[in-house]
Amino acid sequence: MIRKTDEFVARTNVRGGVGTIEMHNLLNEGELGGKVKMLARIVLPAYASIGYHQHTEDWEHYYILSGTGVFTGPDEVAQDVVAGDMCMIKKGESHALSNDGEGPMEILAIILE
Amino acid sequence: MIRKTDEFVARTNVRGGVGTIEMHNLLNEGELGGKVKMLARIVLPAYASIGYHQHTEDWEHYYILSGTGVFTGPDEVAQDVVAGDMCMIKKGESHALSNDGEGPMEILAIILE
Repeated sequence: MIRKTDEFVARTNVRGGVGTIEMHNLLNEGELGGKVKMLARIVLPAYASIGYHQHTEDWEHYYILSGTGVFTGPDEVAQDVVAGDMCMIKKGESHALSNDGEGPMEILAIILE
Repeated sequence: MIRKTDEFVARTNVRGGVGTIEMHNLLNEGELGGKVKMLARIVLPAYASIGYHQHTEDWEHYYILSGTGVFTGPDEVAQDVVAGDMCMIKKGESHALSNDGEGPMEILAIILE
């Protein structure tokens, strides 16, 4: 089965972040077989961000598909990221991501529990 | 932790397909918490393909990141696919994917078991 993923949910100030981001859910619960909590492509417009937040019951990896930005990991150290970077955390840890470019930044987010 | 994912394993004639594809593994077993068997970005050069094959013990979804191609699902019907298309199968089903363009096709592959 082929599904188009143009549709998205617009979310503003996510986790205390800046701007409005697009959440394109790629797979539904049944298609993930209970193994993964979420698999989504997220578009952050210029200068948008996802605020620093903790994952207590699960953990989430961000994979940078395009654009440039700043990833803040559990040690609160901010690092520049580019396409091809996999930004990982473990259960219980915190993270944030911001787009520091003038174009959109696209990422893949996977939440495991 | 941030990992670069430029490195890849080159695989030729995958599942009876054409050409040599790049397998960029995004997460290792521990980082997937035993929930997912594989999460990879795969690059298919012009006219390369992954041959028709069955998943008996797991199932795999292909998400088209860029390029154009043809996805063949479990019913053996070939369908054109473009960026943003999520190509899904269930456990026990078969699939194939070919790049029909003159540029590279990039996909994300996730194997669940």
